[in-house]
Amino acid sequence: MQKLLIPSYSTPERNRQVLLVERPTAIPEARHFAIDEEALKSPAEGEFLVRNIYLSVDPAQRGWAADVNNYSPPVPIGGVMRALAVGVVVESRHPDFVAGDFVYGWLGWQDYAVVGPQQVMSQIKNPAAPLSAYAGVLGLNGVTAYLGLNKLGRPVTGDTVLVSTAAGSVGSVVGQLARHSGCHTIGLTGTDAKVEQCRNHFGYDIGINYKTAPVAEQLAQHAPQGINVFFDNVGGPILDTGLRAMAVAGRVVQCGTASVAAWNPPPQGLRNEREVLTRRLVWSGFVMFDHMADFPAAVQELEAMIVQGKLHYDEDIEQGIEHAPGSISALYAGENAGKKLIYLG
Amino acid sequence: MQKLLIPSYSTPERNRQVLLVERPTAIPEARHFAIDEEALKSPAEGEFLVRNIYLSVDPAQRGWAADVNNYSPPVPIGGVMRALAVGVVVESRHPDFVAGDFVYGWLGWQDYAVVGPQQVMSQIKNPAAPLSAYAGVLGLNGVTAYLGLNKLGRPVTGDTVLVSTAAGSVGSVVGQLARHSGCHTIGLTGTDAKVEQCRNHFGYDIGINYKTAPVAEQLAQHAPQGINVFFDNVGGPILDTGLRAMAVAGRVVQCGTASVAAWNPPPQGLRNEREVLTRRLVWSGFVMFDHMADFPAAVQELEAMIVQGKLHYDEDIEQGIEHAPGSISALYAGENAGKKLIYLG
Repeated sequence: MQKLLIPSYSTPERNRQVLLVERPTAIPEARHFAIDEEALKSPAEGEFLVRNIYLSVDPAQRGWAADVNNYSPPVPIGGVMRALAVGVVVESRHPDFVAGDFVYGWLGWQDYAVVGPQQVMSQIKNPAAPLSAYAGVLGLNGVTAYLGLNKLGRPVTGDTVLVSTAAGSVGSVVGQLARHSGCHTIGLTGTDAKVEQCRNHFGYDIGINYKTAPVAEQLAQHAPQGINVFFDNVGGPILDTGLRAMAVAGRVVQCGTASVAAWNPPPQGLRNEREVLTRRLVWSGFVMFDHMADFPAAVQELEAMIVQGKLHYDEDIEQGIEHAPGSISALYAGENAGKKLIYLG
Repeated sequence: MQKLLIPSYSTPERNRQVLLVERPTAIPEARHFAIDEEALKSPAEGEFLVRNIYLSVDPAQRGWAADVNNYSPPVPIGGVMRALAVGVVVESRHPDFVAGDFVYGWLGWQDYAVVGPQQVMSQIKNPAAPLSAYAGVLGLNGVTAYLGLNKLGRPVTGDTVLVSTAAGSVGSVVGQLARHSGCHTIGLTGTDAKVEQCRNHFGYDIGINYKTAPVAEQLAQHAPQGINVFFDNVGGPILDTGLRAMAVAGRVVQCGTASVAAWNPPPQGLRNEREVLTRRLVWSGFVMFDHMADFPAAVQELEAMIVQGKLHYDEDIEQGIEHAPGSISALYAGENAGKKLIYLG
């Protein structure tokens, strides 16, 4: 277990913030953000002040920054970029949160956040894993994998499970959980190095580089009876190919659409309704925020697996808030080698 | 209740059959079939001879005649066209079926069929409805509506339910069942006459002519909170429009893809995965043959509704087997005014 060292310091008077200054029409890039600072605020009654330690970078931030077609209202122009983070309470006017408590939640891309309990997704009472893990494998990413797979994918022993962005922060957990459930696991990823990582680090039975291999042929070869569960994070042509390799009564979990560069104007693709019909698929959309009641139990399960050495995860940590603005586009370019975090040490 | 008159006659020595003589690449037309005759066969031990009374014409026959992308093996070239029918047992070597029994099942487009119990979908012991009804509203069509809606659509009181081919043999039953469940029902159909039929005969709250009305605007107006259940029989642009009007957590039942003229080469359309994700839809394919264990109970429910006058249905009956070959394309052209049957009187 990692000993966490919180540097001793006196709280500064300024709070640096990453603001959304231009509305992206596709993937948010550095130019859509600006770093500004404001005077540090004090918590009102019922609130507390959190110093952020690890800022999370997530594919979903693209949707939060867009102004169409999403499950939550867009970040306003001029507002702090919506983000999850792990931080430590430094001043509190709420009885359940005391200085020194670690929390994970909606803290935003900034040095400090004044929040209430409703912004907290988990209170990290006795961290059994390194603190950074609570922003990834034990945060939104890992819990999304756990609940999306188990509640919508419903794998059973012997199933063949296909995962896109198989080495990513969600996909890598899906693959490992499916393997632990006795499934045959196939991972799709975009470099040979990540194929190796899928095979040797995350325990996939099969890794396929979708950029160089003929995916449909590979799926026919490695899933001759068809795919029972397809956990898809990318959409687009990979989704189309995967759908055409599904077994009858297969479950498709749509967890992201990362491969589609823009939704306005609406992009075209293969018509998939005949696949849904003839294969009798169940194709469902998974958004974590529908399942928050299950969050704590999922964290507990995943934490136990990490402590037992049964769940591997990688992190790609950069230090300094100045790395935040360009981090989403870097994520979409596949440049990261694990869960992308910004450390505000 | 209709008194059924079976004409008295002596069994002829010849059996007229509609054979599939050319593989259709799209909708089967008269030219893909030929009418031939064979010597009448006698049932072997365990079989029985059925004289067909009502041949069913179904959109699904298009898929059964195609050689790709379906849920059952294609009808062989030179084989009798696969079809459901209601008939009467005229000679039996099976203890459970005696001469005079009515049966509904896989009897094919022909005058006579020699079959066993596995070809029978229901034994019509004491018909409480007109015999023709057992080939439609109390056969594949009605039961598909009943089970597709209830098992996959899962409407609850107050839901808004959208139905395509709303006046068709499946859609008209879906609309009535949804209304009986306390749902707000919207029917899409292709002529003003059918819109009227939806409103005044099948009890839809709203009828929309998709060929003349702006469908997206109409749905926004009549389903301001979004659609909870979309029972889709057509696919294509109507499906795309419906998906974009769904409420969060809506259920889409894909029961047919009648509007898409050909699947080879694969047609293009709007990408729908972002709708599945952000609206958290559950989009499922319904094929009746997965649910045969539920068939008898569904027939019983529907039969009771008919007897009580709670379920309306229309029939479009032509007399003579010579009408069978052109009947599928007529169905796709929307020329029928109710469940299409061929009466072999």
